[in-house]
Amino acid sequence: MTPSAPPPSKSPSHSLSVRMFDQLVQETADSPGVTRASFGPGEAFAHQLAASVARDLGLAVTVDIAGNQYMKWAGRDRSAPRIIVGSHMDSVRHGGNYDGAAGVVAGLSAIADLQAQGFTPACDIVVMAIRAEELVWFPTPYCGSRMAFGLLDPSEYDSVTRSDTGRSLADHMRDEGCNPDALRAGARPLDPATIRHFIEVHIEQGVTLDMQGIPVGVVNGIRGNLRYRHGRITGKYAHAGALAREYRHDAVLAGAEFVQVLERKWDDLTAQGDDFVATMGEFWTDPDMHGMTKVPGSVQFTMDLRSLSNDVLMQVDAYLRDMAQAIGDRRRVTIDMGAYTNAPPAIIDPALVARFEAVARRLDIPTLTLPSGAGHDCATFSWQGVSSGMLFIRNQNGSHNPDEAMRMPDFDKAVQVLAATLCELA
Amino acid sequence: MTPSAPPPSKSPSHSLSVRMFDQLVQETADSPGVTRASFGPGEAFAHQLAASVARDLGLAVTVDIAGNQYMKWAGRDRSAPRIIVGSHMDSVRHGGNYDGAAGVVAGLSAIADLQAQGFTPACDIVVMAIRAEELVWFPTPYCGSRMAFGLLDPSEYDSVTRSDTGRSLADHMRDEGCNPDALRAGARPLDPATIRHFIEVHIEQGVTLDMQGIPVGVVNGIRGNLRYRHGRITGKYAHAGALAREYRHDAVLAGAEFVQVLERKWDDLTAQGDDFVATMGEFWTDPDMHGMTKVPGSVQFTMDLRSLSNDVLMQVDAYLRDMAQAIGDRRRVTIDMGAYTNAPPAIIDPALVARFEAVARRLDIPTLTLPSGAGHDCATFSWQGVSSGMLFIRNQNGSHNPDEAMRMPDFDKAVQVLAATLCELA
Repeated sequence: MTPSAPPPSKSPSHSLSVRMFDQLVQETADSPGVTRASFGPGEAFAHQLAASVARDLGLAVTVDIAGNQYMKWAGRDRSAPRIIVGSHMDSVRHGGNYDGAAGVVAGLSAIADLQAQGFTPACDIVVMAIRAEELVWFPTPYCGSRMAFGLLDPSEYDSVTRSDTGRSLADHMRDEGCNPDALRAGARPLDPATIRHFIEVHIEQGVTLDMQGIPVGVVNGIRGNLRYRHGRITGKYAHAGALAREYRHDAVLAGAEFVQVLERKWDDLTAQGDDFVATMGEFWTDPDMHGMTKVPGSVQFTMDLRSLSNDVLMQVDAYLRDMAQAIGDRRRVTIDMGAYTNAPPAIIDPALVARFEAVARRLDIPTLTLPSGAGHDCATFSWQGVSSGMLFIRNQNGSHNPDEAMRMPDFDKAVQVLAATLCELA
Repeated sequence: MTPSAPPPSKSPSHSLSVRMFDQLVQETADSPGVTRASFGPGEAFAHQLAASVARDLGLAVTVDIAGNQYMKWAGRDRSAPRIIVGSHMDSVRHGGNYDGAAGVVAGLSAIADLQAQGFTPACDIVVMAIRAEELVWFPTPYCGSRMAFGLLDPSEYDSVTRSDTGRSLADHMRDEGCNPDALRAGARPLDPATIRHFIEVHIEQGVTLDMQGIPVGVVNGIRGNLRYRHGRITGKYAHAGALAREYRHDAVLAGAEFVQVLERKWDDLTAQGDDFVATMGEFWTDPDMHGMTKVPGSVQFTMDLRSLSNDVLMQVDAYLRDMAQAIGDRRRVTIDMGAYTNAPPAIIDPALVARFEAVARRLDIPTLTLPSGAGHDCATFSWQGVSSGMLFIRNQNGSHNPDEAMRMPDFDKAVQVLAATLCELA
């Protein structure tokens, strides 16, 4: 059933979401921007606010032993696999108000609209407020959602510490009434088999929607990555005025060629339709050693390679290692890419992509289908085999900074797409 | 006249030079290596040693108000323009024993040999021990030789300070009995018109002679340079996972292309026979800002471009500025090369090059004719219009370090070439 909805700005969800965003920014302000540390007071306030709004909507609120909060709108068939709409509620230090929180607010808003329309879901619809997604606090990816599936290594509860306090994850969890010991012993609060779909609404962290003038994005995959933290080109320092070209071991010239080789590979992959993005965020001669009149003997660099295909990533790794060897041999330097870490891509359910696109078309809401370059909790659900989907909301000024922005009409449109999709799925 | 000389190892100069190098290393040792600061005790000792050896050879020793020492072997025609053989006697901290000093020792050694051969010069032959060549002490180029021609800016005597003491050049000069005030007032101890030739013998600071197995080099020019200390590429920092390629302003990718453009220009110049060397000794993303998952928003770099032709340098500057603009426009970054300083090349008298080559051929001493990439006091004389020439001695392990090396048989061969050349010229 697809009830006709009121204009978004008059919908019940509009005032609910405006109120929630206002309270969030007021209570977690840390000028400039907001700070909601994982398992800290800002995050806890956000969870309480969500619980309070959920109870007003008649939802049942529970919290698992990892601190994740579930706000359940009971469906007609209580035994049917549920649909979870979720995101995180922590933020980086001096971050923006919308990164993460918008997804939880969107879930509650969609339910408010569906209730106002007299809709009753067939299965449970659960809004999930997930803990500890922002890596700046506890440096283990998707901490809250991975704990929900029992995926953290048992050692991490003690070894992973919060960047601001130095205290362990377990300690901070206990402060919030969680039970890290049970999780360490193998507890698994969430069973993937009980979840029909996971849907995450999130602000886009890039500018693609904004540049193209489109309010809502449909995510078709979350890129995986290959990360090289310790790349190094080793040549030989020498007197720039004295050493002839044929006897030099110039690390900068070799490094520039290596960067260009990577960029040409990127061009080739793009031309043949493969998804790929590369960043060499650090590339530096050593300030303790370098000098204007010295042939540079060393360059250190990082590489962050992303793709929707892990095969593409592995193919690029092999290619770059061959090229590093060839360039190094020819230029009498050593190009050592070093070890990598690999996070595989997360598969977004194509059926959900098609559903979001169709619903938005029907609602006359323009969308763009695009990959997510950044990681999201959605990836954890995907890796567990749950049919997963994501909507992006147009955002100005990037994320993880106090200038992060989002316009309420865009948010309302995403809620419309979400509500109408839930209406079809549930 | 060209008297037949004894074998170098039996020549009078051999024991004289061995003794001088031994005394220098003993009295100025500063393990590892030697330290002879400009206007410091090590340099003063070297000048005294040279004066003492010169007096033993019957030379007249004088010192100008800048502290440069002249050791004159009187010629038959006292009014004829003289030939000066000179180099500096200071060293970097923990430097080697030969950089600079070898040139003064070579001048005295050549005179010793010529005297032993019964030669009497037509014009005066003057060995000049020059002050303060090593830039690490007083950061003004060719300080001693430029003072001899009154070329220092009057303000430099007070504004230029020694790196280890912080005291001004004028203060240090007064300590050594010099008269900076007279120089500041316009005194010019040396008149270029009175100098027929200036000849400097110096260890090669690179490895070209050593790699090619040749004991003596004939210098055919001293490269000038264009130096850019404050190059900067400005893009925009962004989230590597979130920002699509088409919206990036990646300073590292732009920088790599710029480096490659410079290198291809170098290839082209070399292919068409133009002398050119380029070094980008510093090239760095900012450690306070960069990160593995950030699109790099800034690169800072230096460039040191050298050539025997100032036209080539200026042509490269214009080309690079055009390319910086084009690359920057295409990649949405700003490539600012910044201001440069220009030291023009020094012309080596082609007649002296031909003379050295012919003399060495006659003596059956292999030579290689090559440019000097590093600067030398010889450049000051050249810029004053004096017919100038240089000989290089093969050197192992570079210069400006305690491992700097030179083999006495190679030194003896350079002295042979010098003595036979003086014999022809004087």
